[in-house]
Amino acid sequence: MTFTTDKDIRFHHCDPAGIVFYPQYFYLLSEAMEDFMAAAGKPQHEQINVLRRGWPIIKLDVDFLSMSRYGDRVSIDVVVKRIGGASLALDYLIRGPEGDRLKASTVVVHVDLETDKAIPIPDDVRAAFLPYCATT
Amino acid sequence: MTFTTDKDIRFHHCDPAGIVFYPQYFYLLSEAMEDFMAAAGKPQHEQINVLRRGWPIIKLDVDFLSMSRYGDRVSIDVVVKRIGGASLALDYLIRGPEGDRLKASTVVVHVDLETDKAIPIPDDVRAAFLPYCATT
Amino acid sequence: MTFTTDKDIRFHHCDPAGIVFYPQYFYLLSEAMEDFMAAAGKPQHEQINVLRRGWPIIKLDVDFLSMSRYGDRVSIDVVVKRIGGASLALDYLIRGPEGDRLKASTVVVHVDLETDKAIPIPDDVRAAFLPYCATT
Amino acid sequence: MTFTTDKDIRFHHCDPAGIVFYPQYFYLLSEAMEDFMAAAGKPQHEQINVLRRGWPIIKLDVDFLSMSRYGDRVSIDVVVKRIGGASLALDYLIRGPEGDRLKASTVVVHVDLETDKAIPIPDDVRAAFLPYCATT
Repeated sequence: MTFTTDKDIRFHHCDPAGIVFYPQYFYLLSEAMEDFMAAAGKPQHEQINVLRRGWPIIKLDVDFLSMSRYGDRVSIDVVVKRIGGASLALDYLIRGPEGDRLKASTVVVHVDLETDKAIPIPDDVRAAFLPYCATT
Repeated sequence: MTFTTDKDIRFHHCDPAGIVFYPQYFYLLSEAMEDFMAAAGKPQHEQINVLRRGWPIIKLDVDFLSMSRYGDRVSIDVVVKRIGGASLALDYLIRGPEGDRLKASTVVVHVDLETDKAIPIPDDVRAAFLPYCATT
Repeated sequence: MTFTTDKDIRFHHCDPAGIVFYPQYFYLLSEAMEDFMAAAGKPQHEQINVLRRGWPIIKLDVDFLSMSRYGDRVSIDVVVKRIGGASLALDYLIRGPEGDRLKASTVVVHVDLETDKAIPIPDDVRAAFLPYCATT
Repeated sequence: MTFTTDKDIRFHHCDPAGIVFYPQYFYLLSEAMEDFMAAAGKPQHEQINVLRRGWPIIKLDVDFLSMSRYGDRVSIDVVVKRIGGASLALDYLIRGPEGDRLKASTVVVHVDLETDKAIPIPDDVRAAFLPYCATT
């Protein structure tokens, strides 16, 4: 099961060359991760604000395949590649009408925000993300 | 006629105090202006990409009334306060469930992006924005 | 006594029109406030990280006087206009080689980050900022 | 020859967890690339504004090794790993006082901003970057 969310390329994403400034793609991926977790029933803002648990990134590999411009509408696929003991491998694909724009592989770790230590992914969170896992 | 657009307060809008970092409010107002112009039939990306005309800001007055936090959903009202020869006065109100968050008054100017000079607002753009003008 | 700090206009400050995207000016003002407080002997990161006290903004009035472009070097003057019981009025002037770029008046409030309530500005902070106060 | 530039972790780089929001690291790397090119005698703003040539990214691999916090001062090493016909492989290492924070490998391509096509790296640019090349 792949989760997909659509995003508009805004003026504020773009640079003097008229294309998305590459760090701004990660603002879009950050939103896509939030949209995915909310769709899975585990909104990140509840995890962070209430439970004081977050998902800092430890690994990021990106291929920039083609440019995105102001006014484009893109789709972002989110795939759970692997659910580890305390880590989560999430892949992203940003697609435009005519082809792929960006592929990213990420690993995020579940941490207790009070101690900044990694903690096991709770069973209810694991169960919520499992249907989106590519390699179940 | 007031135009209203809803926005989620994202993780990337928030600062170490857990509230919206104030410059990020202007990313939201920038999106609200885009949403308004698209709703009025004059998407800003077409004005900029195709016609090479933009709307740089010359005046901004803001009252920050109460804090916004990660996970909040806010509504942004956009009111056209005045349509001048080459300028546009736009007011914004950001509202949360329990009350107002931010009030902003802005003046933007219509410019030719090739010359950076102010140019008269075209009749079709004026006509498109007029129904949203508070003081018609 | 006026505090001045110099800043480079970076690629990441600029928009598809090739000029500073206006919310990015407030990233520069945020840095200028940090530079001022550090120069006055009260680095903001110590106030926030150690003392858990911050300076959220409540009022902002800006005149955008002329455009800034990628590669420009600008100077930012910071003037303490008024030190109130719990608030601080700070004025900023961004200057380029050929003239003024932006004038901003701000009011920030001293708050306890644990309670989000305004608290009196401590005497040592007041004494540190006083030499920069325009209306002593 | 390694180029190194120092950066302050600003309030505006940090997220509600009090650490650098990961896309903001790429704002710092973008500044480090600008600082490197300026030190090599080829400021990017002249390449972009005057020559209309830029360096969009096509590949990015990052290991996030430890967290950076508001108030930290970090050093960024820039190493030219390879100068190709039209591409440049740049590696970055962000270091804190107690150890490494982030390692990134990037590939950027030299493009004509009028056509968005890759173009050969000019001889004077190649000669300017060569002393920083790890594998000469």
